[in-house]
Amino acid sequence: MKTRDRILQASLALFNEEGERNVTTNHIAAHLGISPGNLYYHFRNKADIIYTIFLQYRALVNQYLVVPRDRPLTIKDKMFYLESVFDGLWHYRFFHRDLEYLLTTDERLRRDYRDFTFQCLAEIRAVLQGLQEGGILRSHSDGEQEAMALNAWLVVTNWMAFLKTAHAAEGDGDISREQLRQGIYQVLTLEMPYVTERYHDEVMDLRERYRPELPEGAVMATAF
Amino acid sequence: MKTRDRILQASLALFNEEGERNVTTNHIAAHLGISPGNLYYHFRNKADIIYTIFLQYRALVNQYLVVPRDRPLTIKDKMFYLESVFDGLWHYRFFHRDLEYLLTTDERLRRDYRDFTFQCLAEIRAVLQGLQEGGILRSHSDGEQEAMALNAWLVVTNWMAFLKTAHAAEGDGDISREQLRQGIYQVLTLEMPYVTERYHDEVMDLRERYRPELPEGAVMATAF
Repeated sequence: MKTRDRILQASLALFNEEGERNVTTNHIAAHLGISPGNLYYHFRNKADIIYTIFLQYRALVNQYLVVPRDRPLTIKDKMFYLESVFDGLWHYRFFHRDLEYLLTTDERLRRDYRDFTFQCLAEIRAVLQGLQEGGILRSHSDGEQEAMALNAWLVVTNWMAFLKTAHAAEGDGDISREQLRQGIYQVLTLEMPYVTERYHDEVMDLRERYRPELPEGAVMATAF
Repeated sequence: MKTRDRILQASLALFNEEGERNVTTNHIAAHLGISPGNLYYHFRNKADIIYTIFLQYRALVNQYLVVPRDRPLTIKDKMFYLESVFDGLWHYRFFHRDLEYLLTTDERLRRDYRDFTFQCLAEIRAVLQGLQEGGILRSHSDGEQEAMALNAWLVVTNWMAFLKTAHAAEGDGDISREQLRQGIYQVLTLEMPYVTERYHDEVMDLRERYRPELPEGAVMATAF
């Protein structure tokens, strides 16, 4: 593997494990057994590494989240998109954690992440539209669709942070890929009331597979 | 005002304006015209200041978000809770920004914020329950209520970060109190499909008052 690719791979792993804020370019170089000078030959600074990782993340999302506009969507399509989105979140899980700070320090990232957000919102809307045309979601207005898509985005991008909070009492609060995938339950909850009678039971059953397992303390939320 | 209170007030203002990560205890002391030693007499370190500000935030939320369990709720109640929640978010807006990092560095905050989260989830559920008993929301199962409450929490706590992203192109991306309040539109969107026919138009009209004004780029999300 080329040094540049090794730097990116190691950076992503370290950011995911330790949080971007706790990882310096010196850590990354030491981890790879290369000199800081060698690292700086490939990347100007840490922000440059982060931006390059963002481009990889975006390329991944662009690969799977291209929603056909010329045919209705099936439940299988929908589940593929959801699984892919949460897979992407898992592989680049450091990204949404310290995002606000990353965005304040790199104008290029701020601009491109903003466009990426709106592009994702457009694709989420295309999914909702395709499911409506497929008879899976009942008819809803453009305004409703826009607001629903935005809520899906807010739920997806905040799910990891919530898990970290919920599991805070359990040692280092490491979250598994399985737990992250359970965010699919929350996204399907958003759409459940719009599912047509014909598909209601099928979607309910699918959703059930992802029911989040929250820790003990969470019973407070059910104590009436 | 006592020095301790002045430190807290100045810290909150600086964190909100510049982000917690960009503000050191030296900044805070300089801003107040006091010596770092004087600051350290009152607070051991920045984490100590942040934890104390969190306690103030929690006390504020505990003041308004105590949902009566012995009577049905009205739409007026609901709007009071929503306005209060977004007011609290505004006054302590730095808090949810860099939250994940704050939580990794302070175990006391991690534990207490976790309990605070589950306490808020319980109150959100009590609101949903009260609205159901008031005939405003149609009957829903316990499981549905739990998932809905969690989605409301995810939307509320991620709204500020989304606004920052959406408005990233406009200079320093400062968000107004009015824009933050527009998150109420997104929360009401979650519950809209559960509103009974009798109250449907009233809630739709209320929601409309908060419709988010997103910047130009957001039209991508409507371009079909």
